[in-house]
Parts: sequence; structure tokens; C-alpha cells
Amino acid sequence: MSSMWGERIKLSIFGESHAEGIGVVLDGLPAGEKIDWDEVLAQMARRAPGQDPSATSRVEKDLPKVLCGMVDGVLTGAPLSAVISNTSQHSRDYEALRFRPRPGHADYSAYLRYQGYNDIRGGGHFSGRLTAPLVFAGAVCRQILKRRGIEIGGHVLSVGSVREEPFKEVSLNSETLEKLSGQYFPVLSPEKREEMKTAIENARLALDSLGGVVECGVTGLPGGVGSPMFDGVENLLASMVFAVPAVKGLEFGAGFQAAGMTGSENNDAFYYDENGQVKTRTNHAGGILGGITTGMPLIFRAAVKPTPSIARKQETVNLKTGKNEELSITGRHDPCIVPRAVPAIEAAAAVAVTELLAQSGKL
Amino acid sequence: MSSMWGERIKLSIFGESHAEGIGVVLDGLPAGEKIDWDEVLAQMARRAPGQDPSATSRVEKDLPKVLCGMVDGVLTGAPLSAVISNTSQHSRDYEALRFRPRPGHADYSAYLRYQGYNDIRGGGHFSGRLTAPLVFAGAVCRQILKRRGIEIGGHVLSVGSVREEPFKEVSLNSETLEKLSGQYFPVLSPEKREEMKTAIENARLALDSLGGVVECGVTGLPGGVGSPMFDGVENLLASMVFAVPAVKGLEFGAGFQAAGMTGSENNDAFYYDENGQVKTRTNHAGGILGGITTGMPLIFRAAVKPTPSIARKQETVNLKTGKNEELSITGRHDPCIVPRAVPAIEAAAAVAVTELLAQSGKL
Amino acid sequence: MSSMWGERIKLSIFGESHAEGIGVVLDGLPAGEKIDWDEVLAQMARRAPGQDPSATSRVEKDLPKVLCGMVDGVLTGAPLSAVISNTSQHSRDYEALRFRPRPGHADYSAYLRYQGYNDIRGGGHFSGRLTAPLVFAGAVCRQILKRRGIEIGGHVLSVGSVREEPFKEVSLNSETLEKLSGQYFPVLSPEKREEMKTAIENARLALDSLGGVVECGVTGLPGGVGSPMFDGVENLLASMVFAVPAVKGLEFGAGFQAAGMTGSENNDAFYYDENGQVKTRTNHAGGILGGITTGMPLIFRAAVKPTPSIARKQETVNLKTGKNEELSITGRHDPCIVPRAVPAIEAAAAVAVTELLAQSGKL
Amino acid sequence: MSSMWGERIKLSIFGESHAEGIGVVLDGLPAGEKIDWDEVLAQMARRAPGQDPSATSRVEKDLPKVLCGMVDGVLTGAPLSAVISNTSQHSRDYEALRFRPRPGHADYSAYLRYQGYNDIRGGGHFSGRLTAPLVFAGAVCRQILKRRGIEIGGHVLSVGSVREEPFKEVSLNSETLEKLSGQYFPVLSPEKREEMKTAIENARLALDSLGGVVECGVTGLPGGVGSPMFDGVENLLASMVFAVPAVKGLEFGAGFQAAGMTGSENNDAFYYDENGQVKTRTNHAGGILGGITTGMPLIFRAAVKPTPSIARKQETVNLKTGKNEELSITGRHDPCIVPRAVPAIEAAAAVAVTELLAQSGKL
Repeated sequence: MSSMWGERIKLSIFGESHAEGIGVVLDGLPAGEKIDWDEVLAQMARRAPGQDPSATSRVEKDLPKVLCGMVDGVLTGAPLSAVISNTSQHSRDYEALRFRPRPGHADYSAYLRYQGYNDIRGGGHFSGRLTAPLVFAGAVCRQILKRRGIEIGGHVLSVGSVREEPFKEVSLNSETLEKLSGQYFPVLSPEKREEMKTAIENARLALDSLGGVVECGVTGLPGGVGSPMFDGVENLLASMVFAVPAVKGLEFGAGFQAAGMTGSENNDAFYYDENGQVKTRTNHAGGILGGITTGMPLIFRAAVKPTPSIARKQETVNLKTGKNEELSITGRHDPCIVPRAVPAIEAAAAVAVTELLAQSGKL
Repeated sequence: MSSMWGERIKLSIFGESHAEGIGVVLDGLPAGEKIDWDEVLAQMARRAPGQDPSATSRVEKDLPKVLCGMVDGVLTGAPLSAVISNTSQHSRDYEALRFRPRPGHADYSAYLRYQGYNDIRGGGHFSGRLTAPLVFAGAVCRQILKRRGIEIGGHVLSVGSVREEPFKEVSLNSETLEKLSGQYFPVLSPEKREEMKTAIENARLALDSLGGVVECGVTGLPGGVGSPMFDGVENLLASMVFAVPAVKGLEFGAGFQAAGMTGSENNDAFYYDENGQVKTRTNHAGGILGGITTGMPLIFRAAVKPTPSIARKQETVNLKTGKNEELSITGRHDPCIVPRAVPAIEAAAAVAVTELLAQSGKL
Repeated sequence: MSSMWGERIKLSIFGESHAEGIGVVLDGLPAGEKIDWDEVLAQMARRAPGQDPSATSRVEKDLPKVLCGMVDGVLTGAPLSAVISNTSQHSRDYEALRFRPRPGHADYSAYLRYQGYNDIRGGGHFSGRLTAPLVFAGAVCRQILKRRGIEIGGHVLSVGSVREEPFKEVSLNSETLEKLSGQYFPVLSPEKREEMKTAIENARLALDSLGGVVECGVTGLPGGVGSPMFDGVENLLASMVFAVPAVKGLEFGAGFQAAGMTGSENNDAFYYDENGQVKTRTNHAGGILGGITTGMPLIFRAAVKPTPSIARKQETVNLKTGKNEELSITGRHDPCIVPRAVPAIEAAAAVAVTELLAQSGKL
Repeated sequence: MSSMWGERIKLSIFGESHAEGIGVVLDGLPAGEKIDWDEVLAQMARRAPGQDPSATSRVEKDLPKVLCGMVDGVLTGAPLSAVISNTSQHSRDYEALRFRPRPGHADYSAYLRYQGYNDIRGGGHFSGRLTAPLVFAGAVCRQILKRRGIEIGGHVLSVGSVREEPFKEVSLNSETLEKLSGQYFPVLSPEKREEMKTAIENARLALDSLGGVVECGVTGLPGGVGSPMFDGVENLLASMVFAVPAVKGLEFGAGFQAAGMTGSENNDAFYYDENGQVKTRTNHAGGILGGITTGMPLIFRAAVKPTPSIARKQETVNLKTGKNEELSITGRHDPCIVPRAVPAIEAAAAVAVTELLAQSGKL
């Protein structure tokens, strides 16, 4: 029913791609937290289109304007709200699509859901542009988390068939995550980034697109955060991460691989490390047992489907005439949104982890 | 914070494995719905242990007793509550484990979360036994859904390295699902079931355990159900399915495979079928676009990790002495819970789909 | 939609008067809290009928049975659930009422709401008996609060036209509240209690009933608890107190009297007391400004309507025949439920205050 | 924790009096509803200050700007958001008050709640200005309700000791409510309005202020709307109405008067009217039994305390020096906000009733 989320840290995301604006309300954050504005803008920039020759060339100014909840860079404790104006609206481009749903987009399902009243221009409320307020919310939350020793970062684990090494499940550290979370196309291995870019450029030349997998890690999270059943770490992260458009799969720790392991392989043995800290030898659990953190790095992966907007001719229906038709999507589109999905997924994690800490009374 | 779920159809699950009882409250169901009790018991039986030579031999009587919300088999509209008494409690078996967390179990994370006050006997609130009230809730919901033409069923897609064919994403029908949802160890191919059983028996003999993947389908769901962002079909299903213990991954439609496809491969082309219905040629979306149903079969897969309780000696810590130790888990345990996870995951889907319909005003 | 409440401290109340049982789930309480069972029973006894010659003579055994969430009298952190069996069911008494709604009862509105499928026996889910699980929940919460220096108590401020003195808004102390919260028919002045009893007895003899006002106080609540807008102290208390059947009005501090005051009369002047504590000279705010506690005693009053079940002949309709009819309610009913409403309203306050503390991170 | 509300119709109100802006998100409204903008502005105007010689003379431009959720005056089904810019900010006026809390205001309780980080300028998030987004939300909802035959309106029942006749509880009709809901200082009797104005002017001259009671009615609401326990009509209305600053009491139907009645007086007898409709002879229940509507007019009254901002010298504390001090509030303030509270309370009712209809599947 809703673009609102959370119990302690309440998030409301609003807007449509070609409406006057889009924005966000974040309620329940602790008063007195200092927010570094440059850090916020840096995160917004990572998500913004047009930085990469392979990415969409549309100019999109995503400068958020804080309406309330912050005075002189310090949170007041009242709802924090920011708005991003929509400036460049080429609404003509979309009118032809009203009754011809684009394959892989929400056009048809939204048509049914809203009886045709939804704003279809630019994808409306379903536009990837709506990840901008999410990234804003995450940029605020991650600063609060960082102050408590918690770091969040992700990388492009794969694009199409190009795949780099995953995180080291046991030794993943905050330095790695911090470095990644400052990059535009974050990877652990720069050579792999070049291979991925080549694959994306080839897809673009083929009038096609690519998907990929984003891997995200959280370090510094104390053990004992989360709850059994419906408010487990996996549940809350999932309820957020699946809000990022194009995400079709999510796994924690060994995830789907764990399904093929034996118990003796998959179980993470406990031991006391040299500092007397309880650790696990492996971390197939991804830092979560019974919905609750163990204190080991939290690791998850999200599958991002290929951009549905492709220049190739596609089959569709005409909902007005009731006939089958062909469709060509014009305009320039990202042949691969995976690099830009990383900050959105990191942001989703940042908000969810803030909520989890708040629920555990540790914020 | 919570073992409560939902906005329209509210679900509360309570209980601990060796407490007096476990149970469920389901609030918001429509008054006047007739509930077939035998159908409820049949679903409970699918989840119950001890049916299979390979499964745990503990006797567990899971007969639910309805406390309220139903008169003469018809829902009254008030909260429906049922309780299952815990009868066979061998609490001695567990006392030795209090300060020696079992690898792969929630013992350690729960110890931190509840400062050691949680009921550890039999896993307490984290026990797989808590899926019994979930299956009860699902058994009620699926009857309400069936009356509206919606069928839910799942199968064991894989156990260890043995894998059968997945659902036919486009032509999956209600007959298939209905048949599966009446079986104890549901598979599409009976020969594969035998292979899986052999693999499980081998794991048991090796004092080990196996995981697997459950695939679940929903047919008859009208298009236009669900919402963007946080109340999408994926979000609500995930918030439920990750409540089933041992689930570590979830994917919809092509899921993680979609991450390796091109847009032209992954996009599902729309067309009018011979009855003038909008259909898609493929169904990589798993029946969901933009968080909203398309009217095609809803298909998802959940990764179930191998049973953490294994007889082999394992490393652990002693939280009292602060020393590393070894641990042997005695008692008999399921070497593979995947077959019994199917009805639990189907139940999770049934409750989530009922909520989704209610949110869309279609219940 | 729902008999579930709360965000941090989630409460689910279920049951119908003549079903198998009624009960409660309370989720989110801190692990490790010791619960004095005698104290719980003492609170249950205050609400139970049949203690007073003037009250209903039905025998009602309200002994709660804890199903889970507590081991050896200590909360485990998992959902706490208790069930009360319904033993004495005279269902015949009610069948005649199915299509003849009793004036002042929920019979007619519930008939519309549930299309006649609701359980009408004994009032079903609308029965005053459903305050028993609420009192149980309150009895648990008040022990947790007491351990944090917070005391809750109420008194019968008025019955019919008999009225005793209200609380001293500034000097109300925990001793007074503790004393009241141990009484069956709690009043500040024992002579007034006798007057009230006489009025009730007279009403009974006149085949009629009386209402009254319950005043409730909370001391020891720190300042700074609560939130503006929708999660203010007034909002949360109201959402709870109006769940007690027969409550038709609620006011905080000077309440409706404040509406007749001038600002200079109503404003509570701040000052430092001899211990350097900020206090107010008066307490017309009832301890709440802007939805947030001031540290002064929290005081509110609830208006309880007279018992609708009276022996006098009354007009009603026959929903089956579509004709006007007359109705006589047989059986024995409380001519005044106000004394028994006190523990229910105290319990509502106890749960709401626990939630407020949890929301403020002070639990 | 939160300035967010609702389950089906989610409302988020954000802003601080002297921040960049204030605003509202309303999520879950049905797509396709036409919104008359002039009607919205008319409701905003009723709440705006400066219309009345007796009211505050500050110029406040409350023109809302819709950001999203509406195209060509029709709701799209996505979140509706509107922002009101704050233009005239005299922040100097307030700096002196930071450590000297104004009696009757939230200054002190908010200071504790937010450890002094809250934005105190103009009352911050606690400002009466925050009722502007609420009135916006109500103005949208009431148009949706009107289309379904439901009318909402209120009047100033009393100001100080001047009181007019209350609504006719049985025969209250939509014409009366419609007329009232178009007025600035709505009363049933224009002569009483003059008396009230005189009383307000006298209070102003005495450097003092007045409170009053707002009575609000809803007609056309079908029977069977609402739920027992925590989602009853009273509960939901209360959770909204207490969000309007200065409200300290709330009663439904006969309310506190019912507490002094006998059952035979208070019970509303049912009968079939000449059209075969079930009606009640009286309406002491205010249209609600068991938390569910009866189909009779819904009537409630809210007690509004006198404006705490008065020019008279008042006692307070200096939180910095720890000394008692005196305080004079400068600037011009409404000596009576009751007339402007009417549209805010009507708006609260409009949102709550829309939620109630949605919960009952009748929207």
C-alpha cells in the first residue's frame, strides 16, 4: 500500500519521475547528530547518472534541498525531510507508451493497479530516479552508523558473465568498505572493472543491456542485534533491498550455495580469538544466526536484472486497441545500472541497520 | 523486535519449544469463511516430524486447538487463535548446551540478544517447531485463497547436489500446485525424490546433514496486486519467508540467473493470448513487475541451509569459562529439513498473499 | 482491523466470551525481568466479577496460564503469552438475542461489521471479559515499571452523581497510587465508597445501572518521554484506553476544564524546587506538554458509560423480521462496572507507558 | 517516535516553524480521485492566521505546492506530497527563549526529549503551523469522502464561558456540516459568535487568552465501519485528534455526561424508521458502539486549552543558570485559537475516517 517503511526509523519516499519533485522524510533519528553535507552529496553523486560514458547521458540534477529536521548541519530530532526538484522533463517522449507497456517495466502491472491513473511519464513512482531519496536517507544514516563504528560498503560482484572475487567473509574490514563506498563503480579489482565496462559497452553497441550482482558488507555491527521471526536482520534488510528497482534475488552469507553444502561444511565453528572475542572460523551465515547478528561481518548479495529499457524492437500489446504490437524504446538509457545500484543498496542497508540498532536499543 | 507481522492480516506467533505451548493469532481475516478442519490437519501433518525414516524420530503431537475466532468451522471475524501444547519435553538434553553455543544455531546470537535469559531448551523461540503455528495460519489462509481461485504449492527443487526440474514458468497451473500441496515430500518427479532420499540417508550415515532449495508457485493471482517500494510482492513475501528458520536466500522468477542475462533475453514480451488475456511469452519476472503482480504465475525459490544439528564433533566456545571446547550434539535430528520446509514456505506465501490481496482491496 | 497494538511493546488480545478461551500475547518486553505471580493474580482479582454484592454474581474463573515467554518467573525475551480458559458457558441465554440487538451494546454495529458471523454469545469479542487479558498484560508491565520507579494507580472519581475529590495534581505521590492499585473498589475517601455503593445498590433495585469516571495517575515517569504529533503521550494512552469497553471520554490534566480557563490560569509556571528539580506550580497539563512528559505526575480521567445490560424492558429491532420489538435482558449483570474498570484502565496505562519508555530508549 | 500515522492511509507530517518548509505525504489514497484545488485552498484559508482582527496579525503564506501524486488534478495512486515554504522568519525573537521554557508550551519537555537540539524557533516541530499540512491532508480526504456521501463539519461549541447549543445528536444532517465547513469561525448561532468574539477581544485586552471546545460531526458514514479494541473509531480518531496541539480532552456522544446517566437514560433504543432504516431514538453513543459505527451521526468534542502564549509576565526557570526567572512573551499571538482549531480537527477526522473506511474495505 505504501512507500513508507519502518517502526523506529520511519522512512517515507515520495515522488514521480516527471512530477514537480521527489523527496524523502526520515523520522526517528536521534537529535544532535552532525551531518556532513559533502558526504551526503558524495553519495548522491555516486548514484547520479551521466558520470560514465557507458551510462545514460541525460542530465539529471539531484541536488537535495533540506526542508526541515536539521539546523546548522545538526539533526533536531524532528522529521528530516529533503526534496529534489525535477527539472528536465521531456514528457512527450512517453505519451506514446501509455497503452503500450514496455516489457520488463512496471507499466502493465501499474496500469492494472491504478486503473491507468498512474503517472507514466519517466516511469512515474517506479522510476529508478526514486532511488535518489533513498540514497539521501542512507547517506544520513551511514554517518550516524559510522560514528558508532559501523561501516557499510558494496561492490559490483558481477556484470553479465564478468565476475570478480567476492568479499572475504571472515576478514572483511572497514577499510575495504570505506574505500568502496567512496567510488562510483566500486570493485575490489580495478582490472575487473575494465572488463565489466567493456562488456557493458558491447551490450550498448548490441542495443542491449546487462544485469549483475551487487555484494554488500557491513562491519562493526555488534552481536545481538535483530530479532527472531519477522524482525530478523534478513527480513528487515529484504524489505528494504527489494525496494530498489530491478532487484530480483537476495542471499545472505553462503546463501544459495549453502543449499548445496553439508552441515559440517556450512556450520561456522566458534572460537575465542587472541583478544578473547568470540569469532567464527568461517562465516557462511553472513553474520546472522536466527535473525540476529553474531558480530561477524554482515554480508549479502542482491541480483539486479538487466535494464529493461533496450533499443531493440520488442513485442508488446496495445491496451487500447487490444492488438499485439511492436515497440521500440527511444531515448538514451543505461545499458547497465548495476554500478549505480551499489549506492542504492548500500543506502537500503544503512537505513535497515539503523532501524535494527534502534529496535535493539543500541542507537 | 517482534514475532508479529502484517497490517491488514496480522499474525502473531508465540511459543518456545519446551514451554507449555506454542500458538498463533491471526487477525483481520474476513468473517464468514468456512474452514475445513481436515485440510488444516493435513497441512500440519506435512510439516510434522517423524513421517519419514530419514527424518527425526521424535514424537511430536502438533494437534492445534482453536481457542477463539471460529464457531462451527466458520470464521467469526474476531482474532483466530490456536494453541499447540508441548508434551514431550526432555529438558535435560539441553542444559549442557547453555554456555556452549551450537554452531549454525541461534544459541550465541540469542545469548547476546537476551543476555542469557532466553529459553534455550530445544532452541526456544528459535526452534523449527515454531513453524507449526505458521503452517496453521497458512492452512487457514490458503482455503480463503482457494475460494478466490488462488492456489499455492511448492516442491523440493534440490537436496544437496540432487536437483529436479524447476516449475515451467509460463505454463505452471493450479492442478500441479494442488497436487504438490497435498504431498509430504513434494517433487515434480518421483524418481528424483528417491535420489534425494538416498542422498539424505547417506548424509545421515555420515553423521552429517543436507540443505536444499524449495521452489514455490502461486497461480490464479490477479494482476495489479502489490505496491511499489516497501509493500511490493517481493518485500512482503521476503519479510515472511525469511521468518522460516534456515532460509538464507530468496529469488523471484529468473532471480540470480537474471543477473547474467541480457535485457533482450530477460524481458518478458507481452502478447494477447487466444482468449484476449494479456500474457508474457516468458516469465523471468516470476509474475512480478515493479512489486506488482502481472497475472502470470508467481514463482520464487528459497535456499534452505543444511540442518545445523549434526552428530559430528564440532568446535565451539564455553561462554562461562572463556575457553575453546568441542561439542557433540546428541539426540536424533533431521538430516534434512527441506521436505518439511516446503509446507512452511507455502504457508508463509499463503499469509503474505492474503495480506497483499487485503491491501489491494481484493479480499 | 485489529486487536493488536504497539510498535515496540506489541500486544495482541484474542478471545470471545464463550469460545474455548481468551488470551494475550505481549512481545518486545525486556528479557530478564522477574515477574511476581502473586502480584499478577492480585491484579486479575481486582478485575474479576463477583467480589461485591452489588456486582454480577456469575462465577468466572480468570486464572491465566502462561504458555511461553517466562521460565521460573523470569521473562525470556520471546513473546509472553497467557491463556484463560472459558469454563461456564450458558450459551442458551444469548441465542434469542442474535437478531435483536441490545441497546448500548455492540450487537448491531458488529452485526453490520461481520455480516452476522460474529460470535454473539456473551458479547463475543466485545465482552468486558476481554479486559482480563489486558489486565494480565498490565500486571506484567507495571512490575517492570515499578522496578524503574514508576507507579500507576487509579480511583473511582465518581459513580452516577456521587463524586469524591480528584487527585492532587501537583503532590500526587507513589504511596497513594500503590495503595489504590491494591484495592478492589479504589477510592481516596472510604466514606465516598459507601455512598457510591449505596447509589449502585439503588440502581440495581431500580433495574437500572450507573456509569462513572475513573481517574488514573502515573508517578515517577521521567520528563522527555513521548513524541510530538501521533506518538504523543495522549495519543498512545488514548489508543489504549478507548480499547476498554464503555469508555466514551478521556481528558488529561485539567482537560475539559482547561477549555474554560484563561491562559494565565491554565499555564503551569516553572520553578526550581529546593532540590534543584524543575517543577510546575500547578499541573493543569497533567504532566504532558507537546505530547511529551514534563516529569510532573501524569493524570488522566476516563468517562465510563453505565452498563448497557439492564433488566428494564427496552425498545429494539428484530433484524430478521424487520419489525420493532421490545427486549428484556435476563441474567445478572453488574449494575456498575466502574470499580472493575479501574484495574483495566490502569493496565491500559501500564502497557502504554511501557511502550512510551521503549520508544524513548528508556526501558 | 513519530510524525507518521496510519496503516492503509499513511500520513507523514514534517517541518518546523522556521525551517525551509513544512509539508505532508499522504500515501494509500485511491488512484483516479479528482481533487478540486479551490476547495483545498478554501480549507487552508480557514486555518490561516490573520483573517480576524482578534487573531494573530503575522502574515503567513500557507500556499501548498504539490510535488507529486497528482496529475491534472487527479490522484495518481502514488504518494501525494505537498510542501509549504516558510517565508517570514523572525528568528531573533526566539533566541532569548532557548533556555527559558515558556509555560504551557512544549519548550521544556522537548528540551528533555531532544537534549536541547530541537529547533525552538517559532515552536519548531511543535508549532501550530504544523496543522497546515494536516488541514491539507484533510482537505484532500474530505473530497474523497464527500464523493461517497460522507460530510464532516465542526463548530466552536464554546469559547471561555460562552457556549452555544451542541449538535442535535439524532437529526444532525449534511447540510449543516457542509455549511459549517465553509466558514472561518463556524458556529450554529451567529449571535453566539459575536459574544465569543467579544470575550476573545476582552482576553486580548487583558493580555490573556481563552480556550474552548470544538464539536465535530460526521454524517453519511455507513454502519459497520471500525473494529473492536485498538482499531475502534474512538481509538483512531483519538490518535489523530490529540495530534492537534492544545487538545487536552476528547469525548464521543454523551461522553463525560454519560458517566452521570443511568443505563436506561443512556442506552439508545433501536427502531426502524419510516424507510425501514435502523435508527436510534437518541444518540448518546455518538454513532459508535463497540468501536464500530452504527450509521447514526458520529459526534465528538475536543477540549482546546487556552493559547499558552500570553503577554503577561510569567514565572519560569533558566535552564542555563539554574535560577528561577520571569518571562514576558513578546510578539503578537492569537488570544484564542479555537476558531482556527476547527478546520484542523475536521481534517484530523477526515483522515481518520478515510483510514477507517479503507480498513473496512469500503473506500
